[in-house]
Amino acid sequence: MSGQLAIVGLGPGPADLLAPRAAAALESATDLIGYGPYLDRVPPRAGQRRHASDNRAELDRARHALRLAEEGHRVAVVSGGDPGVFGMAAAVFEAVEAHPPWRALTIEVVPGISALLAAAARLGAPLGHDFCAISLSDNLKPWETVLARLRAAAGAGFVIALYNAASRARPWQLGAAFGALRGVLPGDTPVAFATAIGRPDEAVSIATLSDADPARADMRTLVIVGTAATRAIPRPDGSCWLYAPRSASPVTA
Amino acid sequence: MSGQLAIVGLGPGPADLLAPRAAAALESATDLIGYGPYLDRVPPRAGQRRHASDNRAELDRARHALRLAEEGHRVAVVSGGDPGVFGMAAAVFEAVEAHPPWRALTIEVVPGISALLAAAARLGAPLGHDFCAISLSDNLKPWETVLARLRAAAGAGFVIALYNAASRARPWQLGAAFGALRGVLPGDTPVAFATAIGRPDEAVSIATLSDADPARADMRTLVIVGTAATRAIPRPDGSCWLYAPRSASPVTA
Repeated sequence: MSGQLAIVGLGPGPADLLAPRAAAALESATDLIGYGPYLDRVPPRAGQRRHASDNRAELDRARHALRLAEEGHRVAVVSGGDPGVFGMAAAVFEAVEAHPPWRALTIEVVPGISALLAAAARLGAPLGHDFCAISLSDNLKPWETVLARLRAAAGAGFVIALYNAASRARPWQLGAAFGALRGVLPGDTPVAFATAIGRPDEAVSIATLSDADPARADMRTLVIVGTAATRAIPRPDGSCWLYAPRSASPVTA
Repeated sequence: MSGQLAIVGLGPGPADLLAPRAAAALESATDLIGYGPYLDRVPPRAGQRRHASDNRAELDRARHALRLAEEGHRVAVVSGGDPGVFGMAAAVFEAVEAHPPWRALTIEVVPGISALLAAAARLGAPLGHDFCAISLSDNLKPWETVLARLRAAAGAGFVIALYNAASRARPWQLGAAFGALRGVLPGDTPVAFATAIGRPDEAVSIATLSDADPARADMRTLVIVGTAATRAIPRPDGSCWLYAPRSASPVTA
């Protein structure tokens, strides 16, 4: 098979945070596939076909891309941030595993700067030492699994980054997550809301776990929950930096 | 104060995985500071001063950079991968917190593609759904904390990325970590060793937890320990892709 498939990380949004390798893969593709708002970020090129799809249909989108590659096209599947972090890469390999002929295709994952890294950079250095990333979406796993992971991570002193924190279809999960974390972490644990980082409507706010309002998050928000060791450094202009000291965070459970 | 400090992520190594924003920050700096092998990756520019330091002296290096910025220089602190993931960002903010006059400086963290993301992209999609990153270095935290985090993460079904897995000064930690994980995870859990990803001497190998040999890791190796749900897809050429299905990984504890 001569077709090729690249799963390309677009980074957080700004053009100057897009890796040159990703830009080259987008430029050389005959076919671009992805969620519409991500495709809109890629500059148009004459002769290139675009296949926009709904946000939820990852597996259908992956199969569509693989069929095009099988036909000999040069396909780029676009993913916001990094394709391996709650992005399109896992869906593509899930489709490949289920259909053995696709295992002979040339498939490349082109990494990108994930929302997690962009948000952390904007805030200071909140990831500090050990951290985890948890998706609050219960579309693909039971909510009890989410709760168990939140409690385990907080109890062991991990900084926690919450992906898919809120959307119209999942309005209550973030509040329930904060509730579970309040059972483990001190009320003054810093919580950061980082929305649309790097884009024109970027917004950042910092709260404590006891007063963190889930309504501050929308589907473009990454939430970072610190540990008892996380520090906020106030600055003369009224803003602050958040960082996690490199030394041990306390294990509370 | 007119000085500026940028903490710049160099990404995993290849020039085409360096973000343009990072390249611009390196290009415009009057002073570059960092661990020698990282500085060597930055193309020389006439008139730019370079301050190489030992790998261990992060806090001294951070203070040196802040003093230069305070004097009005345009300083770039270089960090491999992403500066917020076991990189220089936390050390800089630790120094800033301890010396309040530095809080008025302009400090920017420029994110990069972390070793974690580069290794995952090379392997397939092993991070799948929820994951964590743990440094096995016990220079800054007690070894008991490392063990507690390994057990909590494995028990809750997180994919685990191990940073600082091995070095000449820390030869036994990775074997002890595998031992702790064998008490929680099935013996056939996939373990990937990803060494010097993207560089000429790149090496990747995949084992199971029961036969994973710590001697495969050196100081350039990121180790990824999957979950009971992690899948290896064999390919016609004898290689394989590793991925974690997006659906729930089992919670074993």
